[in-house]
Amino acid sequence: MRIDIITILPKLLEGPFSDSIMKRAQEKGLAEIHIQNLRDYSTSKHKNVDDYQYGGGAGMVMSCEPIANCIDDLKQQRKYDEIIFMTPDGEVLEQSISNEFSLKENLLILCGHYKGIDERIREHYITREISIGSYVLSGGELAAAVLTDSIVRLLPGVLNDETSALSDSFQDNLLSPPVYTRPADFRGWKVPDVLLSGDFNKIDTWRHEQALKRTKERRPDLLSDTEGE
Amino acid sequence: MRIDIITILPKLLEGPFSDSIMKRAQEKGLAEIHIQNLRDYSTSKHKNVDDYQYGGGAGMVMSCEPIANCIDDLKQQRKYDEIIFMTPDGEVLEQSISNEFSLKENLLILCGHYKGIDERIREHYITREISIGSYVLSGGELAAAVLTDSIVRLLPGVLNDETSALSDSFQDNLLSPPVYTRPADFRGWKVPDVLLSGDFNKIDTWRHEQALKRTKERRPDLLSDTEGE
Repeated sequence: MRIDIITILPKLLEGPFSDSIMKRAQEKGLAEIHIQNLRDYSTSKHKNVDDYQYGGGAGMVMSCEPIANCIDDLKQQRKYDEIIFMTPDGEVLEQSISNEFSLKENLLILCGHYKGIDERIREHYITREISIGSYVLSGGELAAAVLTDSIVRLLPGVLNDETSALSDSFQDNLLSPPVYTRPADFRGWKVPDVLLSGDFNKIDTWRHEQALKRTKERRPDLLSDTEGE
Repeated sequence: MRIDIITILPKLLEGPFSDSIMKRAQEKGLAEIHIQNLRDYSTSKHKNVDDYQYGGGAGMVMSCEPIANCIDDLKQQRKYDEIIFMTPDGEVLEQSISNEFSLKENLLILCGHYKGIDERIREHYITREISIGSYVLSGGELAAAVLTDSIVRLLPGVLNDETSALSDSFQDNLLSPPVYTRPADFRGWKVPDVLLSGDFNKIDTWRHEQALKRTKERRPDLLSDTEGE
């Protein structure tokens, strides 16, 4: 799978893919992540990519031309399954969307900045608009990194233990049960007896009960989603 | 304001605060962001920070001791308003939570990894558990970066134009209206006439209508939140 991320601040994206799982996914050839510097596609003398907004008001707007040039250029090189714009007013990201995207071949992600991008790009180029949550960030870069991470870790072979992603929170509409590791007694705080019992049926039952309890307490909306299906 | 982030993968956090708004906030002395390497607090020979989970199953669990040592050490140096654990089963981040945190002095953020952290740390150390959305990431680092970004950009003086953050999506439970910049005609795609009219009352009305329309179409949940207040 290949993911291209278009940004005016490539430096912000240097860290998130440079270590651990994301680094291994690229080294194993399971994912290619390419950062595209939008300024390279500006035709103005000072490599401008933004301008004042029509109608007045605070905040600059990212111009059509550099974005259109960049996307046109990339589309000539390969077919993209989706051209995604990260924006607080997009469709709210959920695990099912990451699952869906993880089956694609080529994704193009555009990071917005300042007050946003010219609406005409959204109308004529973008095929999906995604928000990672109901809060505002200083740009789309972290949102793009979050989306990319959530997708790439699902690719077969990326996680060391293939069962690990399947037992994550959300994959079965249940939050994960509590987990414990050694020592059994830390400063007087003890691990639940059942986990030390060696009785795996009892442990499975306890984990399912705890997952259900935690979901009811913290995210009852996940349970009602299942009932609605 | 000071934010400490505890992680086993400090490299992942090198990019997100190194440029643009987050960099300026630190240079202006408005925010201090400190990355704490959890491995420095491991007392084991190989600087281990994780171990197999009690009861069996895929995925490692982050041990109590290094985390407890690290938090104890930091708490001796200053009082933290909140000790936050980034986790998919936490309270879902919304703009109002970022607003609330932006008024604090010292925040401590713990990034989880692998299958999670030992539950006893959550019970005895953590004061808030935050999720950035209903999807799973390969670790808490990107989530911590998202939370930090959403908070720091709200600090007075961080954004160049102080009115800019107030007109963001979510601050008034409305999504932002479409924005446009030059040229007025790009490849035959035109800017709405009203924005070129110079009539600022008409422009304000149009923007409010567009914001309302967009919110109704895309995020009706935001409007019902307001009604419930």
